[in-house]
Amino acid sequence: MNKETIKIFDTTLRDGEQSPGASMNTEEKIQIAAQLERLGVDIIEAGFAAASPGDFDAIEKIAQRVSNSTVCSLARAIDSDVKAAGEAVAKARMKRIHTFIATSKIHMEHKLKMSPDEVIKRAVRAVEYARTFVEDVEFSCEDAGRSDIGFMKEISDAVIQAGATTINLPDTVGFRLPFEIGAMVKEMSEYVKGRAIISVHNHNDLGLGVANSLEAVINGARQVECTINGLGERAGNAALEEIVMALRTRQDVFKGFETNINTKEIYPSSRLIASITGIEPQPNKAIVGKNAFAHESGIHQDGMLKNKETYEIIRPADIGLDMEDTLVLGKHSGRAAFKDKLSKLGFTLTDEALNSSFERFKILADRKKDIYDDDLRALVTNEMTSAPKIFELISLQLMDCSNGMPSAAVSIKKDDNEIIDASIGDGTMDAIFKTIDRISGYDGQLLDYKVKSVSKGKDALANVTVKVSFNGEPAIIGHGLNIDTMLASARAYIGALNSYLSMEGKLKSRHSDSSKTI
Amino acid sequence: MNKETIKIFDTTLRDGEQSPGASMNTEEKIQIAAQLERLGVDIIEAGFAAASPGDFDAIEKIAQRVSNSTVCSLARAIDSDVKAAGEAVAKARMKRIHTFIATSKIHMEHKLKMSPDEVIKRAVRAVEYARTFVEDVEFSCEDAGRSDIGFMKEISDAVIQAGATTINLPDTVGFRLPFEIGAMVKEMSEYVKGRAIISVHNHNDLGLGVANSLEAVINGARQVECTINGLGERAGNAALEEIVMALRTRQDVFKGFETNINTKEIYPSSRLIASITGIEPQPNKAIVGKNAFAHESGIHQDGMLKNKETYEIIRPADIGLDMEDTLVLGKHSGRAAFKDKLSKLGFTLTDEALNSSFERFKILADRKKDIYDDDLRALVTNEMTSAPKIFELISLQLMDCSNGMPSAAVSIKKDDNEIIDASIGDGTMDAIFKTIDRISGYDGQLLDYKVKSVSKGKDALANVTVKVSFNGEPAIIGHGLNIDTMLASARAYIGALNSYLSMEGKLKSRHSDSSKTI
Repeated sequence: MNKETIKIFDTTLRDGEQSPGASMNTEEKIQIAAQLERLGVDIIEAGFAAASPGDFDAIEKIAQRVSNSTVCSLARAIDSDVKAAGEAVAKARMKRIHTFIATSKIHMEHKLKMSPDEVIKRAVRAVEYARTFVEDVEFSCEDAGRSDIGFMKEISDAVIQAGATTINLPDTVGFRLPFEIGAMVKEMSEYVKGRAIISVHNHNDLGLGVANSLEAVINGARQVECTINGLGERAGNAALEEIVMALRTRQDVFKGFETNINTKEIYPSSRLIASITGIEPQPNKAIVGKNAFAHESGIHQDGMLKNKETYEIIRPADIGLDMEDTLVLGKHSGRAAFKDKLSKLGFTLTDEALNSSFERFKILADRKKDIYDDDLRALVTNEMTSAPKIFELISLQLMDCSNGMPSAAVSIKKDDNEIIDASIGDGTMDAIFKTIDRISGYDGQLLDYKVKSVSKGKDALANVTVKVSFNGEPAIIGHGLNIDTMLASARAYIGALNSYLSMEGKLKSRHSDSSKTI
Repeated sequence: MNKETIKIFDTTLRDGEQSPGASMNTEEKIQIAAQLERLGVDIIEAGFAAASPGDFDAIEKIAQRVSNSTVCSLARAIDSDVKAAGEAVAKARMKRIHTFIATSKIHMEHKLKMSPDEVIKRAVRAVEYARTFVEDVEFSCEDAGRSDIGFMKEISDAVIQAGATTINLPDTVGFRLPFEIGAMVKEMSEYVKGRAIISVHNHNDLGLGVANSLEAVINGARQVECTINGLGERAGNAALEEIVMALRTRQDVFKGFETNINTKEIYPSSRLIASITGIEPQPNKAIVGKNAFAHESGIHQDGMLKNKETYEIIRPADIGLDMEDTLVLGKHSGRAAFKDKLSKLGFTLTDEALNSSFERFKILADRKKDIYDDDLRALVTNEMTSAPKIFELISLQLMDCSNGMPSAAVSIKKDDNEIIDASIGDGTMDAIFKTIDRISGYDGQLLDYKVKSVSKGKDALANVTVKVSFNGEPAIIGHGLNIDTMLASARAYIGALNSYLSMEGKLKSRHSDSSKTI
């Protein structure tokens, strides 16, 4: 039997990046796009070109680099947005513009302050203009979940006539139950049959994003918009990994359907995105959570030994997760073994990146006996995605931290000059960060601080994520990786500062612009 | 119109505790049970009495303390399990025994190695015996999701005849889609109508636990088993907060139903359990995630200002979340203000606990300018749930951590003696933990290490969670709270050691027993 393909439209780089605290620099976005291409997603929504010069730049670079997935930019139904989107994706082998306008009464009245007729006119104009840049245009009825279905049919007729080939129905506020999404999709897909395909974009505010997406597939949707780890605005979007694995695990129900996803890239994708955004899936997250395949209780373990199927419906290997704590490399491993291992983990590095990663690996191997897959992943991701090193940590010294006045002395290199200073703090960390502020001359406000051990053991690598606002600007994420938590923290803070300096102009313009959604 | 009540059966203390790394000490379980009672859950599954003396002890103490919720213990369909359960809940005002046996072919053949007839006999015997202890007996068909519905009807007839009043149908492997659960529940609830109520217990392996539970309610289930934050084996259970808020937010669909939950206690419950288990909901978790109500993008913020309903379907206050960063108390706040604030946050402390919490608050207020709700919650939870202080940290001193040999000197009190020692480490943290091992004489293996800042600012409280296995025994969680991350880490490690020592005997017996599930 010939199976129908359900298109997977990944919006981790657009809606996912709208998660508070998930903003990424260009280098990070490119790495994620490359991984999404390996994963086999059909469409990569790479950003929202008109939002800021930084967004435009990232989409343009991704368009030049990705060749097996369609590269897409979001655009409001406004000429300047559509133009920016068209120019940003221009060099892609396969390209799409995704334009939208709200179709619900509440949004048209209160947000747009436009009549339904004006909304249709704006939508048609945007689609027609988009078609002057690309063949492949998607139109979204923002807040479809609360829109009148008669009006959605009317606007669909108009935008299909104008050249749209995909009609997306977002449940923008995550309000709907599965049977309601099912009914809406059934009616709409029957209505546009042969003229366009119906797509869904389900937010997760009631925890129903995935169920709603599966119900949509059952009822005629042929594209599903989703994100890795379910990232996105508020409670996020439907999680790509859950949708894909449900379709695959329940082939008895979804026997007519398949996706182009290489499921073995699911776990590496999840790890990469968690590491870059600092947003870790909870341990009890389906498919990719740390405990998703763990069996704690005696009975389950006993059952597992007798017959794996008693409690296991997905094999960890299916999503590219090796359950063994593979001891991968040690201090005597050479460059070739190192490169080979990285390529097995899905990394393709430039010679320069390979060299500096190998150097850092050797330093690590000198201090840490056992180096695991997760250690390597963290190390290489950190290396590949860091901003230009304007400030660089040279050394760090701490003084008494209990009963006394914690203090830190820090030495930092900038433009070949070494600057040294010290400061007292309310705690060790406070002392370190205050000293860095003193040296750099920037005033950082720490909004969040997290440490995770990358693997096991007291000598595990500490992966520190900080969220800092410098000089009152939008917050920036910084990462630091070291066997010593204090050193990793100092590096993370300096990393955030470097990232801030590399994005300074771009950040500002996005902040003053009110231009992202669905 | 008279609404039907959907009973909320919370199994955070039983299935939730089966999450790897979520094992709790008795004091922690009692605090959670008290919070679940405030939340208004109908049934608290407090544990699995036969699993270990520690589990038994915790259930017995909860039974004595809780009066507005039914207290329940799980029991396999074995006399000794049922007896332990009956004795553990004996003193509760309202009590239940929940017994189970697998009814799916794969489980009966491979795990139980029993014929269907033998399974029925065992189930009937367990229910009859349970009725000699309590009036209220629940029976679960383990792996109902993969069981033959004819066989489930047969066993239901038998156990209802024997005295069971609730028939629970767990989707033990989290395998089913909503329409399948709906069909199963419809058939079963019509079959047992007027004789028993149908309950569901949906695991979340495909991310469908909540959708399946709602579909069950639509089709006749009148009890839903769930956990706070969706904790539980593997990908966890259906999340209580999502089910309750979906029923409430979509009263247009669920107009015939209500729950006894006081939704304003949802957020405090979620925080308490996250803090005790160290398992933090991901930021994009529905309802209780840090970003669930955050609006990052310009368009959404703009829409929110114009009309809250454009993007908000639940008000944060409905779940007891105050979106303002309330500045609660400062260094000049007195005992009365402190006590008053705590009671607003839902804490009821003994005089002794109040005194020691107030003392710690004053020390904190001396060093930290702004003290937020979350700071207080963390501080008090930490105080109320810590194990007896066998080892107590006196002071900590650190030496050079970069380019050199990081070392720590630690001073610890035990039985009024102060013991001092020092050690070199592979990093600062390694040095601290190695020194503590040296002083205590216990050999700890660090399995996980996490730090979260409790509130904002460089002087935020650091909340450190460690997972340690001492002398090769099952892992124990420890928490440490301090403005200084290094001090908090040392306290967390010592906390784990104290918790280990207080549970030593009890841990062992659970470990050697293979006795928890569904």
